[in-house]
Parts: sequence; C-alpha cells; structure tokens
Amino acid sequence: MKGLIGVLGGMGPAATVDMFNKFVTFTSASSDQQHIPLLISSIPDIPDRTAALMQEGHSPLPAMRDYLQRLEQAGAECIVIPCNTAHFWFDELRQSCHVELLNIVEATLNEVCASGQHHIGLLATNATLYMGLYQQAIEAHGLRCIAPDREGQEQVMESIYALKAGDAEHARRLMERQADALFARGAQIIVLGCTEVPVILAEAQRAQPERYIESTGALVRAGIRWYEKRVGKTDLLTQ
Amino acid sequence: MKGLIGVLGGMGPAATVDMFNKFVTFTSASSDQQHIPLLISSIPDIPDRTAALMQEGHSPLPAMRDYLQRLEQAGAECIVIPCNTAHFWFDELRQSCHVELLNIVEATLNEVCASGQHHIGLLATNATLYMGLYQQAIEAHGLRCIAPDREGQEQVMESIYALKAGDAEHARRLMERQADALFARGAQIIVLGCTEVPVILAEAQRAQPERYIESTGALVRAGIRWYEKRVGKTDLLTQ
Repeated sequence: MKGLIGVLGGMGPAATVDMFNKFVTFTSASSDQQHIPLLISSIPDIPDRTAALMQEGHSPLPAMRDYLQRLEQAGAECIVIPCNTAHFWFDELRQSCHVELLNIVEATLNEVCASGQHHIGLLATNATLYMGLYQQAIEAHGLRCIAPDREGQEQVMESIYALKAGDAEHARRLMERQADALFARGAQIIVLGCTEVPVILAEAQRAQPERYIESTGALVRAGIRWYEKRVGKTDLLTQ
Repeated sequence: MKGLIGVLGGMGPAATVDMFNKFVTFTSASSDQQHIPLLISSIPDIPDRTAALMQEGHSPLPAMRDYLQRLEQAGAECIVIPCNTAHFWFDELRQSCHVELLNIVEATLNEVCASGQHHIGLLATNATLYMGLYQQAIEAHGLRCIAPDREGQEQVMESIYALKAGDAEHARRLMERQADALFARGAQIIVLGCTEVPVILAEAQRAQPERYIESTGALVRAGIRWYEKRVGKTDLLTQ
C-alpha cells in the first residue's frame, strides 16, 4: 500500500482517537477511497512515559520498538507517534526504524514560528517539561516560553490522568483554569504539548482556535504533507 | 499480544473513527494500560460495497481479504468489520480467516431482541436493504421491519455519501428527516444498520438514546465481551 502511514498510538487511546479523527477531517476527500491509508496500533500496555522518566518506572522503549516494528512489517512507510512525552526516546526509535519517522515537536514548532507570536504558553506533562523538549526549542527561536508554576503544573497532570481515567469533565475544568492562568501571565498563544490536552480543551479550541497550537493537529498536517509528496498529490489538506 | 482485536476498517474512515472512539469510551479503565488492545486498518481503497452490489462495480472482497490477513499476521486474535454492507461477504471472509470474526448483524439483532420492541425501523444502504441482511433476521424473530419508501431511501443514500464526502451537516438534515418518517410510520426503535448513520445521527441519539439501536456500538460491545472472556476479566463494559 503506497503511502501507508503507521500510527504508533495507545499513549493514550483517547489521544489516538483524536489523531485518527483529525486525519479524516483534515483530509479533503469526496469519497472513502480518497482518504489517507492508515494503520493504527492502539496497544496501550506500553509503560507510562511520565512515570518512567520521573518515578523510575519501567521504560516504554522496548514495547514502543516492538509495536513500531509491527507497523513497519505490515507495510507502513512513515510512522507518527501521538504522544509528546514518548519523543524523549525519539532518537532511539529512529535508529531502529527503517522508514520515515515524523517528529511531533518539530511539527509543532514549525507552526509556533509561523504564528508570528512571541510569548508562548505551554501545557504538557511533567516529563515533557522536565526534559525541556519544547522550552529549549522555543527559546532557541528567540521566543519566550511560559509554563505553569509548580502548583498549576500539578493540576495539569491531574487533568491529564483524569482524561486517561475517563473523567473528561473534571479534566476540562482543571485544564481550562491553567490555560487561563497562562493567558493572564502574558501568553499570546498556548502550545498544547501533550496529545491528551487537545482532547481535554476541544471546546475552548473550537471557540477560539487562533489562541492554541496543538501538537496532534501539527503532526497530522505533517503526515498529510508527507503523503502528498509520496503519492504526488496536492491540496489534500483542508486545514 | 493476548486479546488483540483487529479492526478491518476504512469503510468508511469516519465510521472507523466512531468505532475506535466507542471502544475507548465503552471500556471501563482507570489508566491507558487497562484499555483494550486494538490494531486498526483504515486503508480506504477498498471498492465501494454498495456500488459493487447494485451497479456491478469492482468487488471489495480481494482487498478485504488482503487487509484482514495483514491484521491476522500482525497478531489480531479477533476481527471486527465496521461496515454493514461488507457483511454480504461475511461467509467468504470467515472462510479465509483463522481467528474469530464477529458479525455486526448478529450483534445488532441481539440488542433488538433485548429491547422488547416489536416495530423496528431500519436505516441502511440500498445494498444492505436489497440483500435483506436485517429484514430477514428481524422478521424471523416475529418482529415488524419498517424501512424507508423508495424516495426516502434515496435521501438516506444521499446522506451517507454526503458524510463520506465530508458534509456532515447536510448528511444530518437529510437523515433526521428519514428517521422522523420511520417514527411517524410506527417504528418504536430504529436500527442504524450502516456504520455511517450513528455518526450522522450522533446528536439525535444523545438526545434520545432509547430510540436507537446502532450497529457500531453493538459490535463494539460484542468485541469487549469477547476480550473479557479471552483475558478472564469482567465488568469492562461501561454501556
């Protein structure tokens, strides 16, 4: 299957549904057959990424390698991973991957730079913050990164785990408060640098899409552009 | 991966997103790791099922067989197909399949019988109606099946293809009118016997869930029950 995109998902499942939905809705297609071919692994027994980095939990790398290889063996020509924290292991995964592996942080940063804004809020997991995945890249572009304070960050994590446990409403209330706090501290846009956050803040994004840059959508757009090049099509992107 | 469920999707992609979302939201889980492992094929170049049956289009069977075998080779122990019309080829697919293959019509009929209602409306593709997939089973249980008249059925098909082409709003308006017509003709509940229809009528179902029995959800529940047996768990189903 020419142009088959593999999705190494399950981290978590709801974020993987969100990515799949964005692939379908961001593709301009007038029939089933014009949509982008996807093979989605949502095998969620991969050890928790944040726990591995912050609490000495089991490493997710062996399971991620295993499921990535299955996607390759099944014919995927390009792989995307809808989990920002998992990108701590990006270089190791790329080394064991024989096809194109798109990077969610790069895809998101491209959209941050294109926005023309300078004060960039950041909602992400403790581990993503701790590793500096986004802050370093944002500051390397001469922009200012505004992350939650210690107490606020605890609420961000409570919200993310609430969504993973199925309590979307509790997750939404907690996260909207933290987004408001970042805007109050001068953020002009907020990077949703955890793939659970666009699910949690879906309503706020619908109301004011120009205030958010979300990593799942950025990676989907990068995937659609990869597919366009691979099969020689253009104008597949609706947004 | 013990209990891996393969989803032979892409028929169409939006219906496959809906199935994936239902697997996630219908599973009682307090962390990523407790969710059901899924491998989802959304390779949509499978020839149109209705066109194959009604207009002598290409058969979708070879492509469905190919993608089903890939799911098996990647470790799926049970396969579900979120497309009712594709179930015309169910017996052929079962013959070439070495693992469990769950049937969407059987899963849906079980829920129809459990509802205790006797006048059953039916929204499905021309091909599903033409083959009598649902009518025969409904009538075999001594129940009355109420399908749209010829003109109404044309609107049903226009609605389904509108969703496939990305026009969800036009699809919704057309389909709600046909649902209302079936209720007006005495339907106590309506079977949504095409996996695009639950996507199109999502709002109407949220408002009055007791009036609809939808095939995607029925198949997801059957899949979750299969998984419970396979891994020896109980109480995974939230709805």
